[in-house]
Amino acid sequence: MFGFHADELKVLLLKWNNIDWSLPRGRIYKEELIADAASRVLKETTGIHDVFLQQFHTFGAAQRHKNYTDDQAARLFDNKSKESREYELVHESIVSIGYYALVDFEKVVPNLAASYQWCEIPAIPDLLFDHNDMIELALVALRKDLRYLPIANLLPPKFTLREMQKLYETILNRTFDRRNFHKLLMSYDFLIKLPEKRVGTANKSPHLYQIDFEKYELALQDGISY
Amino acid sequence: MFGFHADELKVLLLKWNNIDWSLPRGRIYKEELIADAASRVLKETTGIHDVFLQQFHTFGAAQRHKNYTDDQAARLFDNKSKESREYELVHESIVSIGYYALVDFEKVVPNLAASYQWCEIPAIPDLLFDHNDMIELALVALRKDLRYLPIANLLPPKFTLREMQKLYETILNRTFDRRNFHKLLMSYDFLIKLPEKRVGTANKSPHLYQIDFEKYELALQDGISY
Repeated sequence: MFGFHADELKVLLLKWNNIDWSLPRGRIYKEELIADAASRVLKETTGIHDVFLQQFHTFGAAQRHKNYTDDQAARLFDNKSKESREYELVHESIVSIGYYALVDFEKVVPNLAASYQWCEIPAIPDLLFDHNDMIELALVALRKDLRYLPIANLLPPKFTLREMQKLYETILNRTFDRRNFHKLLMSYDFLIKLPEKRVGTANKSPHLYQIDFEKYELALQDGISY
Repeated sequence: MFGFHADELKVLLLKWNNIDWSLPRGRIYKEELIADAASRVLKETTGIHDVFLQQFHTFGAAQRHKNYTDDQAARLFDNKSKESREYELVHESIVSIGYYALVDFEKVVPNLAASYQWCEIPAIPDLLFDHNDMIELALVALRKDLRYLPIANLLPPKFTLREMQKLYETILNRTFDRRNFHKLLMSYDFLIKLPEKRVGTANKSPHLYQIDFEKYELALQDGISY
């Protein structure tokens, strides 16, 4: 679960056993569609629902459990003997199907008993299992998918071109030339220039824009070039 | 397995039981990395090896087997009772992890006992399982990934800008304005213009180009815009 708000990109972490951090996770029921399982697990673990989940990668069984310590392993399998733990690790061949979502972390508030944290990418601690690798791959996927994602949903209803540019820059972790990027945005027909201006910013009052979502959807089908 | 050659995009189909067509497929061994399984299965089913395989989507168990006929089901499960078949369909919860590759179908020749066919996309027949849906999703993924894939490998060592444009157009199933697209290609630094020209074409002898693969790799990291 990626969260974006005001030029900040974060990841939702859950506390497990009150000690270790991990991503939201759960099992798929038999005869359940895996997309349905992803929504259900998210709702059960975080209370978050009705967000668009995008499958990005499936992680294999082998070499999955190498990166937790003996202490972590003991906490994870506290009801099991060492033998049954090892049997499970070697023979169960767990495959994890990764989904990501991108939401406004000021609007989407988790509702859960356990602790959670919206954590900035560079500050992510060592997570359970291979969850650090998963975040890395989810970020690569998010950046590759960005041309096709309706990320303008993460902006306020009225926004400046600079705010839209910052949205791309924050997710892509790069900068764009201001003039070229604004020219590029204006080459699409989904931006509606409003008579109003943003006041009280450091720059001289920039114009506000809003999205024509019908045209935006059409542009996203071919992908937004940048 | 997508194959491209001289403006044609095709998919490799295998004959199953001498009657039904399907994609190459197989099982993952316990403790095997799923990427290793994908390579092994491809080699075992087609003889093709050493190609770059890209994971694109994982397909769930539920509603997988709805699209084969009673005849097909009988052939697929010829050693099993109807009860054990149904048990397997309902309870085994098979998940399929899809990989695609993109090769030159004139250079990559399958080596297998069963029949195979490089089939053009519009001519693909009804396949077993949900393999038609899989091809559709693989194509969507291939087109989204295109900016990051070293597709110039599919061109001859010396090629014209028009041939490179046709490569994009064929895979994306759309056309580009010739002048704009050539200008775009030339805005990158990975194309080396050769003194030689292609002779004997309908157009007046166009210049030949080759790829500087070191610069090409760098450009692909950010993605090639088009």
